Amino acid sequence: MRLTLACIAALLVCAPAKPQTLPGFAAGSVRPELDWEARFRVIPDAANLRTYDQRLSARPHHVGSPYDKDNADWIFSLFRQWGLDARIETFDVLFPTPKERVLELVEPVPFTAKLEEPVVGGDPSTEQRAEQLPTYNAYSIDGDVTAPLVYVNYGVPDDYKELDRLGISVKGAIVIARYGSSWRGTKPKVAAEHGAVGCLIYSDPREDGYFEGETFPAGPYRPKDGVQRGSVMDMPVYPGDPLTPGIGSTPGAKRLPLSQAETLTKIPVMPISYADAQPLLAALGGPIAPEGWRGALPITYRVGPGPAKVRLKLSFDWGTKTLYDVIAQIPGAQYPDEWVIRGNHHDAWVNGAEDPSSGAASVLEEARGFAALLRQGWRPKRTVLFCVWDGEEPGLLGSTEWAEQHAAELTRKAVAYINSDSNGRGYLNMGGSQSLEQLINGVAREITDPETKRTVWSRLQARLISEGADRQELRSRADLRISALGSGSDYSVFLDHLGIPSLNLGYGGEDTGGIYHSIYDDFYWYTHFSDTDFAYGRALAQTAGTAVMRLAGAELIPYDFGGLSDAVRRYLNEVEKLARDQGDAVAERNRQILDGVFAATNDPRRPKALPVVEQVPPTLDFAPLEHAAGLLQTAAERYRKAALRAAGDGSKLAEASTAQANAKLMLVERALTLDSGLPSRPWFKHQIYAPGLYTGYGVKTLPAVRESIEQKQWDEAARQIPRLAKVLESASQAIDSAAAPLK
Amino acid sequence: MRLTLACIAALLVCAPAKPQTLPGFAAGSVRPELDWEARFRVIPDAANLRTYDQRLSARPHHVGSPYDKDNADWIFSLFRQWGLDARIETFDVLFPTPKERVLELVEPVPFTAKLEEPVVGGDPSTEQRAEQLPTYNAYSIDGDVTAPLVYVNYGVPDDYKELDRLGISVKGAIVIARYGSSWRGTKPKVAAEHGAVGCLIYSDPREDGYFEGETFPAGPYRPKDGVQRGSVMDMPVYPGDPLTPGIGSTPGAKRLPLSQAETLTKIPVMPISYADAQPLLAALGGPIAPEGWRGALPITYRVGPGPAKVRLKLSFDWGTKTLYDVIAQIPGAQYPDEWVIRGNHHDAWVNGAEDPSSGAASVLEEARGFAALLRQGWRPKRTVLFCVWDGEEPGLLGSTEWAEQHAAELTRKAVAYINSDSNGRGYLNMGGSQSLEQLINGVAREITDPETKRTVWSRLQARLISEGADRQELRSRADLRISALGSGSDYSVFLDHLGIPSLNLGYGGEDTGGIYHSIYDDFYWYTHFSDTDFAYGRALAQTAGTAVMRLAGAELIPYDFGGLSDAVRRYLNEVEKLARDQGDAVAERNRQILDGVFAATNDPRRPKALPVVEQVPPTLDFAPLEHAAGLLQTAAERYRKAALRAAGDGSKLAEASTAQANAKLMLVERALTLDSGLPSRPWFKHQIYAPGLYTGYGVKTLPAVRESIEQKQWDEAARQIPRLAKVLESASQAIDSAAAPLK
Repeated sequence: MRLTLACIAALLVCAPAKPQTLPGFAAGSVRPELDWEARFRVIPDAANLRTYDQRLSARPHHVGSPYDKDNADWIFSLFRQWGLDARIETFDVLFPTPKERVLELVEPVPFTAKLEEPVVGGDPSTEQRAEQLPTYNAYSIDGDVTAPLVYVNYGVPDDYKELDRLGISVKGAIVIARYGSSWRGTKPKVAAEHGAVGCLIYSDPREDGYFEGETFPAGPYRPKDGVQRGSVMDMPVYPGDPLTPGIGSTPGAKRLPLSQAETLTKIPVMPISYADAQPLLAALGGPIAPEGWRGALPITYRVGPGPAKVRLKLSFDWGTKTLYDVIAQIPGAQYPDEWVIRGNHHDAWVNGAEDPSSGAASVLEEARGFAALLRQGWRPKRTVLFCVWDGEEPGLLGSTEWAEQHAAELTRKAVAYINSDSNGRGYLNMGGSQSLEQLINGVAREITDPETKRTVWSRLQARLISEGADRQELRSRADLRISALGSGSDYSVFLDHLGIPSLNLGYGGEDTGGIYHSIYDDFYWYTHFSDTDFAYGRALAQTAGTAVMRLAGAELIPYDFGGLSDAVRRYLNEVEKLARDQGDAVAERNRQILDGVFAATNDPRRPKALPVVEQVPPTLDFAPLEHAAGLLQTAAERYRKAALRAAGDGSKLAEASTAQANAKLMLVERALTLDSGLPSRPWFKHQIYAPGLYTGYGVKTLPAVRESIEQKQWDEAARQIPRLAKVLESASQAIDSAAAPLK
Repeated sequence: MRLTLACIAALLVCAPAKPQTLPGFAAGSVRPELDWEARFRVIPDAANLRTYDQRLSARPHHVGSPYDKDNADWIFSLFRQWGLDARIETFDVLFPTPKERVLELVEPVPFTAKLEEPVVGGDPSTEQRAEQLPTYNAYSIDGDVTAPLVYVNYGVPDDYKELDRLGISVKGAIVIARYGSSWRGTKPKVAAEHGAVGCLIYSDPREDGYFEGETFPAGPYRPKDGVQRGSVMDMPVYPGDPLTPGIGSTPGAKRLPLSQAETLTKIPVMPISYADAQPLLAALGGPIAPEGWRGALPITYRVGPGPAKVRLKLSFDWGTKTLYDVIAQIPGAQYPDEWVIRGNHHDAWVNGAEDPSSGAASVLEEARGFAALLRQGWRPKRTVLFCVWDGEEPGLLGSTEWAEQHAAELTRKAVAYINSDSNGRGYLNMGGSQSLEQLINGVAREITDPETKRTVWSRLQARLISEGADRQELRSRADLRISALGSGSDYSVFLDHLGIPSLNLGYGGEDTGGIYHSIYDDFYWYTHFSDTDFAYGRALAQTAGTAVMRLAGAELIPYDFGGLSDAVRRYLNEVEKLARDQGDAVAERNRQILDGVFAATNDPRRPKALPVVEQVPPTLDFAPLEHAAGLLQTAAERYRKAALRAAGDGSKLAEASTAQANAKLMLVERALTLDSGLPSRPWFKHQIYAPGLYTGYGVKTLPAVRESIEQKQWDEAARQIPRLAKVLESASQAIDSAAAPLK
């Protein structure tokens, strides 16, 4: 018999498909789950997302504003309308708003900063002046300072090292830093540590203005008067209400006096536009700024100090405002005390069509979808909570206060928290606990990219390959690595404080612009320049919704610890290399000092301070961590085998042993926390992930060890290594305990 | 007896110094040589250098101008006054000057470019309007074109690959390229190859304007109306008079008709300021320029084409001008037919206090110093020539025509050519034939850096260490590597055409600015912002003068071939890696194409052209080159031993065998040339070094092989490998022949 090509093709098509498996699901449960997921994914509708986004962003709706409560009430009524069990939980928090804002250049030529974002013709939202918050940084202290100006680049610790080399001190000065590189609250914090008396933060056109593309309204980028508002609370110490660290800010809660609130800035700070910044920067003398410090303004960037002298006067209304968190709850049919939580905030700095409404709209559409599935007979095994938070912008207030208030219950019950914050056009960003790496990769393989019709997983893989990352691994590893989470959104309290496995999801990368936290983040901008047809809003609802369904529907909680142990191994390698590199760098610099290299290369017309010989750091003993990482890997492999065997043989997923395993599984991520927290910041309990003390948004993995090394605190590093090793050992034991009932 | 510290110090000081050796010098000749060198080095005087620089740059003195001849006559009279045997040699060359220059933006808004550099108050040279050459590019053809504009970044071949990816063609367009990255003549050449009809070249403030520092007169950088004049002759094909390739352009010489002059541009081209460029660039539409393409103008850089439409009209006076090369000759006492040649040009585009007067002044001071030594009884063994060239700026005219005219004699007699072009404050730049690497390193160890009082050698070593290059090697290798020479100054004909070992020297790196080829390159600028006290002018005279003395004074020509064979080994490694990397890159891109990576990552709102599968290049057989490089290394080692032995034992440096060795030594670098030259450019005969066909200034080592690979001409590369191997074998044999008389 002669096989024609058509025959071969037919044979291939007709070959019986390999039976699909789903981690955590018994063989017989896979098909029904996939069917329900498919039914869910046809529900999200771009037209609805558009309607929600338009409604949510119709007026400015920051904490304490009338439209903030209005939105909460509307969300609540939607949930109710869809038949969900919903409630609004309120908290009272410290939230300062500006009373007075003055910025003047007093020398060498007078100039008064405008501090205002103009109306843009054709964009009606920009006209809502009466309801807009002025441009300011929340949780700056009051102050009235006049001082010489110093340009400090991004204002991160390395920039001050460079200033030292230039022989420039900011003591008694007002610094001007550009946005970028770090969490904005890092800038005044580091400035104050170096003796500055005030801090300005401006948006350089290099970052998100004309250097990147056409400015609004001709294009998506920041116009010259656009200002990035934002919180400067010291969130890497603790987020949430500054007056109630660690507890919910309910009416009766014990509050710190304002003077003891650690997370307020130490010096006054204000954000400004590049139109306001240019005359200040142009008036600076002193050394030419190092090349990497120069932005895109048509000036010679200089460092100062002076002759520019600046007056900054700020005062705030330090009143208390009420937060409205909207919560909808779908009880679990089998494990009602195992919670899968999905959230996005609803408060904005401005109209916020992108941030947060584009993400909040997806949560609403997921909730509507789940309500529809419930009517069709779907029953999640676990309880699902939809949370639409208030007060994220000022300091993750709504999520933090809620989770602190319900900490005991969450610690017992929470399986996972899935966050988003806003959404755009492009690629799926997957960040989070690596115990959910396998899960979210599986979900990403189910979602169709609106532009290419590939799966969003394969599109992301293609992008990573095209960017030249480790191609060998990208092509062969089962899952794409998910990034560890720092901070900057509502997952922080769940992951960092309570040790609840968390994910942060969103699409982006083709939606660049420069309207972040300015009045131009509105429906006009979003529908002209970002996910204009809400196709990616639909994709986000499909992605997060599928993830929630899978987590809530699996017999066995679909954690996997292979990704976790793999990540810990990598982080450990990084930290060991960091220690070695630090040692090598000190030794090399010392040698260069002794050889006279710095003196020989010092330009007498542009002299730099000569460095001094530094003690070569001790060699750290990483053996305990090496040992613990090995245990973790072994435990992860054992668990994976046990879970696979259990799922492969339906009988093994007997209810009793599964329930027992689930209860143990929830303890694994908790085992990665320590009650005493991280050095100098006890609120942060997770020992694998934390926002950097000096990066803010940026994650520091194995933070206690890594940050000690970075800060050259060698004794502290030596103390933290065995402490972290014990944490990894506990987690390994927790994994082993979870595997036991499955055997 | 108890040794005090003072005693120990005294003992150390008094310990008899290890007898010094000098390559090429018999043991007994070392001390007298070092004494004469020391006597020489006290002669150069900063006050004289200042006087020469001021005199030479007092008026504009381009080819054909009255002050060009005036300077030549003055230099001639100085040489004579010092008692040197001097002459002026003249040549008649094609040198176009502008008759008409028009640049207009005709759409979407009319704008007429100013094309003028304004007078700067307080700087009298800028007022000499009548004598200044207008801003233009020499050897642009005449033309009158009106076409849409396209921004092409630096206008190098890689930029056109990026344009292809963006789906943009320059066919029928006028391109605007920024200065930088390549020889300026490369820009119109590549543009024309891609079908453009005109070319503008502008100075972006990112390169040498306000981005880098304060602009003239407040600082050293290019002001908004400053223009970089310059030649756009296709010098990588051949430099010198376009009408007399390969022969001296004496009155009777056979000249090509203008229409057959290969080195004129194919399209009209003109340089402009950033003030004139900004309205043009701001009027461009089309895709946002890739990030690396964006300069420092306060605009969104876009690529076009259009809507900007531009008219460029140029016409030139294609007349012949006379060059005046000034030559002074000191006859050699022992080897009059072995010539050591030292040169720097005297013509400028403008007043040229930096370029070339700062370098020419040093040559004059060296000549004065040698004249003084002669009066003290010094006699160089070899003949020394001081050459002050005319016509370097338009196309290395004066040096090329002179050396072509005297080619036969130079081929027989020239030992080395030592060039400089201009000078500034900072570090010694040493480029040239590696056969002179050991020599110039030895010289650099004798010169005191004016700022640090270290030797200029150790200061340079410190800088390279501080820049993080291979520190291990920098600390242990006897000599600092000298860089291979591309083109851009008068050494080209000596090295590339005649195979005469050459050096190019100059100080710089602390003297940055942006007045290159603008009217602001004048005495005011130089004495405010560069080597203001001429301390480095003195250092250059000491450096080049010492090098000439050592070359002219050694019994045995002080070539060393260890540096050469080492360099060839490295170049060969680079070329082999290039071939491998090219192959890997094609294979990887093909795989990505087949995997759909490009399609998957294509943003539909900013679509790029999808690449097509390319043939994977064949594996080249480098075995012949590997073999030849081994032979070269062995020969170099053998020669070094023979020369050391010969010098160590004075008797071995018997006149007869030394003379014999010298004669053979002069053949080594000649053996690195091929009469047939490089593929497609027979004028370039050296097979180790050449200016890149598409870089111009930038060197391509092992050019025939390297450029074939870069241009994916695999068959050509396969042909060139054995050809180059034979060249290396001939050189090895030449080295062995030179060693023979020393044994």
